[in-house]
Amino acid sequence: MNYRMIAKLLAQVLRFVAVFMLPALAISLFQKEYAAAMGFGITILIMVALSLLTKLFRLKRQTMYARDGYVLVSLTWFLISMLGALPFWISGAVPNYVDCFFEVVSGFTTTGASILTDVEALPMGLLYWRSFTHWLGGMGVLVFLLAIARFTEGAGDSMHIMRAESPGPQVSKLVPHTFRSAQILYLIYIGLTVIQVVLLLAGNMPLFDAVTTAFGTAGTGGFGIKADSIGGYSPYIQWVVTIFMALFGVNFGVYYLLLLRSFRKVLRNEELWFYLGIMFSFGLIIFFNLLPSMPGQAGDAIRHSFFQVSSIMTTTGFATVDFNQWPQLSRTLLVVLMIIGASAGSTGGGFKCSRVLILFKCLHREVYRMLHPNTVKQIHMDGEPVPREAIRNAYAFMCAYCLIAIVSTVLISLDGFSLETNLTAMLATLNNIGPGLDLVGPAGNYSMFSNFSKIVLSVNMLLGRLEIFPIIIMCMPTVWKRSRV
Amino acid sequence: MNYRMIAKLLAQVLRFVAVFMLPALAISLFQKEYAAAMGFGITILIMVALSLLTKLFRLKRQTMYARDGYVLVSLTWFLISMLGALPFWISGAVPNYVDCFFEVVSGFTTTGASILTDVEALPMGLLYWRSFTHWLGGMGVLVFLLAIARFTEGAGDSMHIMRAESPGPQVSKLVPHTFRSAQILYLIYIGLTVIQVVLLLAGNMPLFDAVTTAFGTAGTGGFGIKADSIGGYSPYIQWVVTIFMALFGVNFGVYYLLLLRSFRKVLRNEELWFYLGIMFSFGLIIFFNLLPSMPGQAGDAIRHSFFQVSSIMTTTGFATVDFNQWPQLSRTLLVVLMIIGASAGSTGGGFKCSRVLILFKCLHREVYRMLHPNTVKQIHMDGEPVPREAIRNAYAFMCAYCLIAIVSTVLISLDGFSLETNLTAMLATLNNIGPGLDLVGPAGNYSMFSNFSKIVLSVNMLLGRLEIFPIIIMCMPTVWKRSRV
Repeated sequence: MNYRMIAKLLAQVLRFVAVFMLPALAISLFQKEYAAAMGFGITILIMVALSLLTKLFRLKRQTMYARDGYVLVSLTWFLISMLGALPFWISGAVPNYVDCFFEVVSGFTTTGASILTDVEALPMGLLYWRSFTHWLGGMGVLVFLLAIARFTEGAGDSMHIMRAESPGPQVSKLVPHTFRSAQILYLIYIGLTVIQVVLLLAGNMPLFDAVTTAFGTAGTGGFGIKADSIGGYSPYIQWVVTIFMALFGVNFGVYYLLLLRSFRKVLRNEELWFYLGIMFSFGLIIFFNLLPSMPGQAGDAIRHSFFQVSSIMTTTGFATVDFNQWPQLSRTLLVVLMIIGASAGSTGGGFKCSRVLILFKCLHREVYRMLHPNTVKQIHMDGEPVPREAIRNAYAFMCAYCLIAIVSTVLISLDGFSLETNLTAMLATLNNIGPGLDLVGPAGNYSMFSNFSKIVLSVNMLLGRLEIFPIIIMCMPTVWKRSRV
Repeated sequence: MNYRMIAKLLAQVLRFVAVFMLPALAISLFQKEYAAAMGFGITILIMVALSLLTKLFRLKRQTMYARDGYVLVSLTWFLISMLGALPFWISGAVPNYVDCFFEVVSGFTTTGASILTDVEALPMGLLYWRSFTHWLGGMGVLVFLLAIARFTEGAGDSMHIMRAESPGPQVSKLVPHTFRSAQILYLIYIGLTVIQVVLLLAGNMPLFDAVTTAFGTAGTGGFGIKADSIGGYSPYIQWVVTIFMALFGVNFGVYYLLLLRSFRKVLRNEELWFYLGIMFSFGLIIFFNLLPSMPGQAGDAIRHSFFQVSSIMTTTGFATVDFNQWPQLSRTLLVVLMIIGASAGSTGGGFKCSRVLILFKCLHREVYRMLHPNTVKQIHMDGEPVPREAIRNAYAFMCAYCLIAIVSTVLISLDGFSLETNLTAMLATLNNIGPGLDLVGPAGNYSMFSNFSKIVLSVNMLLGRLEIFPIIIMCMPTVWKRSRV
């Protein structure tokens, strides 16, 4: 393993994060929240100091292997979460460091699960930082690519990191021109965020609320700055958020294709149709399921159903109502949406629509094979054959996903809460959503869990965000052996 | 499709079942339960009549394709369940025919989920028939093989049926000498049942109780004849049942090997070690989890933990206590056991240990491949390479299993019961266990579900018992086309 290279790259990430923490420091100072300001100040100094330490040695080699990429990505997320949690702890706003870590992992992984019992009591600087971690985490891939592309100057190593942190099987298509593609994706991300802020401001949302809400939407994170999430804002604002959540759950490759005016390719994108199809059908079913309990309020019912469907499917986690109180069918459908998740190549989490599609097709092929044992059938996606590696990856992901789901549910069951709480807490963290059902529903939070469970759930969030394998690989002792050059 | 052949084979199965219904008729007459006796009598006449109908035409061809095998197996299970339910309905003991169907599907599929609110009120003839369906269902494969081997006189067609109804990937090894192997497995099954009856009688269990309990154990079914299942019997009897449940959850191929004195092969059987390892470790964890709430009753605690672990893992479903009241960790571990299930080639259901093992190995291989992209790694089981087809089948089974689990949970959520009830009802039926948690816990039953949900859960039981694919194939319109000769 190329330890020095990894250290240098980690240092570069820390410098990035330190710079991105400056606005939070400024807001704290401006709001005269000196405890929070001290928290940010000290954290920035620690980051800069750690980063300078790596100047003490020089690189021996420029080469990175796949394993280095996986380890680098995993370490980065652990490190920035551990450091990003410091302002909460130093300022005294959240006294338990495990809580701070949970909250910031939840931020960076764009989960939005919170241990705060009273969000509105938090200083503005910390509220800003909390929402901003979503935005930073959502574009994690992109920041990385830019950082690494600059560092290695087109050495092609970025592909390893890309593979390690890729949000699904689709990114590979963009790889040939990694650096340029990353820049364009980056601009799309910023552009959409700015448009959302403008539209929210047009609905008379205060600037601070608009910016933090847009951060939470763009990263498909879901940290709100109000106790009732988005529930207290106007229907107009709720619809804007609904639409933008849905937009950020689309594969960014689609926007890239739109910019290239490849409309036909967009229309042929099976994942896009699957994603939209599920969203609309589930939204409609939930609407009809809610209607009987909301007579004469069809408008509210349709807004709430589509808001919640968009929020859960894109793994954002904002809420306009306490969907934990909904009829059982709607609650169950939301749980299904938690698992399916957003599109690959979006900022969202979950199992990803494209994987679900691939597995559907594999299942169909296997049934076909049972009936016609001697025929060969190729699986196609968007009109092109799906490489065997992608299929194997989807299968392996499914196995790992189920295994982690089971193990983490068992571990947190030690706390003794209900199966529904544990199961949805597991799903809400592993799929980077935030709220679940029962005690962790939109009206609840994660504060009642033990420190042990909070760490388990934090690891779940990281596993979900990094699509499991980089962290598994980081935990393998063989990877850390120095033997191979 | 060879409709005539399928009809003739179905007729043969009906004659078998009619013969096996005679003891129930005799018991009813002996007990002067004339309503039940009439139920059995009429049903037997219907079966014989239906079977005679097939004498009206002759076979055109002897050949059967894979699709015929799948359809035959699926139809058989539907047909015998529909007819086997008649005695309950005709006798008036269970007024709703859907309830009767559910109860008998639950019997034949060796599930043991019941809609009866008062088991002990049932006439003895029906109680006997109910338990006997477990025994018949448990040896479903064997009855079939014998029936078909006789019919086609070694035409080799039985392999298609074997494949369609095989309990897991392991059976294939025995296929070369299908008929003889089936006879031997059959004898093992009967032999173990007899030994269990003798041991139960030695514990002063009444004969009727001993026989029905042995039927429920051997088929890994779980219908009890008492309201508190096995809870009211002595610790000795509970231990006997614990051990025999565990024995019937072992791959019957292991006993076959023991008879052949291939002890080394038995010791190398990875699934056996995995099965026993999981059973012991889960039993111990649950024991330690129960101990604090049962001070000074370590003996009871260890008996209850191992009884329940053996019962759930082998998918039998007997209970000695209401494990729904257990601490959350134990309840969650039982849910995990529900999914894992028994060994392939046993009478038990569930995902099957060998499949879990294969998927673990696949996962390990994929992680290895990520680190060493250019190496090829073969998966081994019991020292032999696992064929690619078995791996593909395990993956496909997993996809189908998850899909069915999700769809059926959503469908029964229409009834509005808790997520825990719905989820464990789905698991308890799809894995052929019987009791779940919450409303369907050992102290509860399935009577409160709507007819629609009862049908969904009945289909789940059949899907679980036939390992999903035969029923999927039967439901495909293309299979029913006459086009192919």
